[in-house]
Amino acid sequence: MTETAQSPVPLPSSVSEAARQVLAVPRVAADWPAQDDVEGWERLVAASDASLQERFPADAFPVDVEERQVGGVRTFVARPPGTPDDAGPVYLDVHGGALIMGGGELCRSFTAMTAMSTGLTTWGVDYRMPPRHPYPAGLDDCVAVYRALLEVREPADVVVGGASAGGNLAAALVVRAREEGLPMPAALVLNTPELDLTESGDSFTTNLAFDNVLGPLLEVNRLYAAGADLADPHLSPLFADVTGFPPTFLQAGTRDLFLSNAVRMHRRLRAAGVEAELHVGEAMPHGGFGGTAPEDVELAAERRRFVDRHRRRD
Amino acid sequence: MTETAQSPVPLPSSVSEAARQVLAVPRVAADWPAQDDVEGWERLVAASDASLQERFPADAFPVDVEERQVGGVRTFVARPPGTPDDAGPVYLDVHGGALIMGGGELCRSFTAMTAMSTGLTTWGVDYRMPPRHPYPAGLDDCVAVYRALLEVREPADVVVGGASAGGNLAAALVVRAREEGLPMPAALVLNTPELDLTESGDSFTTNLAFDNVLGPLLEVNRLYAAGADLADPHLSPLFADVTGFPPTFLQAGTRDLFLSNAVRMHRRLRAAGVEAELHVGEAMPHGGFGGTAPEDVELAAERRRFVDRHRRRD
Repeated sequence: MTETAQSPVPLPSSVSEAARQVLAVPRVAADWPAQDDVEGWERLVAASDASLQERFPADAFPVDVEERQVGGVRTFVARPPGTPDDAGPVYLDVHGGALIMGGGELCRSFTAMTAMSTGLTTWGVDYRMPPRHPYPAGLDDCVAVYRALLEVREPADVVVGGASAGGNLAAALVVRAREEGLPMPAALVLNTPELDLTESGDSFTTNLAFDNVLGPLLEVNRLYAAGADLADPHLSPLFADVTGFPPTFLQAGTRDLFLSNAVRMHRRLRAAGVEAELHVGEAMPHGGFGGTAPEDVELAAERRRFVDRHRRRD
Repeated sequence: MTETAQSPVPLPSSVSEAARQVLAVPRVAADWPAQDDVEGWERLVAASDASLQERFPADAFPVDVEERQVGGVRTFVARPPGTPDDAGPVYLDVHGGALIMGGGELCRSFTAMTAMSTGLTTWGVDYRMPPRHPYPAGLDDCVAVYRALLEVREPADVVVGGASAGGNLAAALVVRAREEGLPMPAALVLNTPELDLTESGDSFTTNLAFDNVLGPLLEVNRLYAAGADLADPHLSPLFADVTGFPPTFLQAGTRDLFLSNAVRMHRRLRAAGVEAELHVGEAMPHGGFGGTAPEDVELAAERRRFVDRHRRRD
């Protein structure tokens, strides 16, 4: 990850100063290892995770986080102060990181952050990833944790969500759950979701010069697929039959490489009669403005309102 | 209007063949007259209207259209077969055309088209426009017709809507109605709306090369404003206090120069606690794919569902 790309347009006047500062940082162009260079991928993941870990240390968040084995999968359980362990709603959180990063201690941090932003007990799945564990290992892990969660909670108490690669797996989990006869969760949250590993959406070209966070991921997607068809609905849930999906919240940004993913999934869900809300951040790149800009905070409140409306209330 | 601009990216594979054909047509770059060249503006408007009139002849639509004077303003009343004249819901339609075009016989066609797509009795306001009648003439006309409509219908039976420049005036009408103590309509429809005459949104730059329908309109906006502040909320309702707005449907496209207008208004409405839905068409330029592409039809159905949910039912 060495080259950088400077945005070809001026910083927008239509966002907060905090957002402008984020947009002023040039994108770091990726330098992917060869597909079979296992150690190369592991080094890349380790370096990226270490950098993020420094930014989001797990002990920075005032929630209890406990590590458990759930359905054979390491899962972090984060409880905001005052939430019970054995009852009440659970947010099943699938972390992001391009399907290769964000595991381990970083997953612990992400789980704590989701618990804080949702106000709910959160189960964060530390699913297996490439290069050692390609598809379907990670998805199998997510389904296993969902299945185990349904043994201790009613579906009306379960919300499934994820951002970026986590949005891929969260949606694919719902596809698999339906195929396997499991009940649907109360709601699904897809935050700037990687729903199309073929990268066929228009924003993959139109926003390429404007998204200062994310570039093309086809090399990583191929590593994840390990020979499976990238267009298979279990890898690219945008192409799934979404009939019977739970109420779904979708979010992206106007500069987001994944804008088309969110927009297209929204239309597919609506065409299938599914309750679905689309929210788009002005001039927002992939993943938002770092998490604490006014625009991020406002969208997080919108997300929480959606979750609170759809989960079973006490 | 002579130069053309070719899109710098390939046609998307993520839309219908009908949509691709529309996207393949290069944008016609505008060649605006000087601000004080009244005849020049009138020639431009006449040429543009004649071209659209050929495409949308008023007698092509199977609805009765009657011309009336309503509150002193020429208004076309279009009734789909079977709808009563003196009762039931009315869609108050504010036509588009960059605040200078789309009047007269073209307004008759647009009113008939809206009646067909909504299935409702539609009142189309043939409001006054520049170069002869700048702001606030057109807005005054819209408010006068709304006021007159409320004398024969309950607010719960009234939906206000418009596309493009019509979205500007529809939203400004709501701002004015609230200031003047008039009741709110049952719902507001803002289709790819020109809500910001200052053109401050990010998509005015990021989508400039991708929207093959619309280019910058600042020259026209200045003609409309005739010295008034373009950022005044009556000219740019994006900057209005939107507290107490009716439930609002917003639509735009990912290639739409007005994408930021729709996205920003959606966030403002939501932040003010207003029920508001955002719908975005994949790879869609300003105004959609000509009206009959599958994507247009699907979004029209979404719009109609929203209107039917919010207006008073029989």
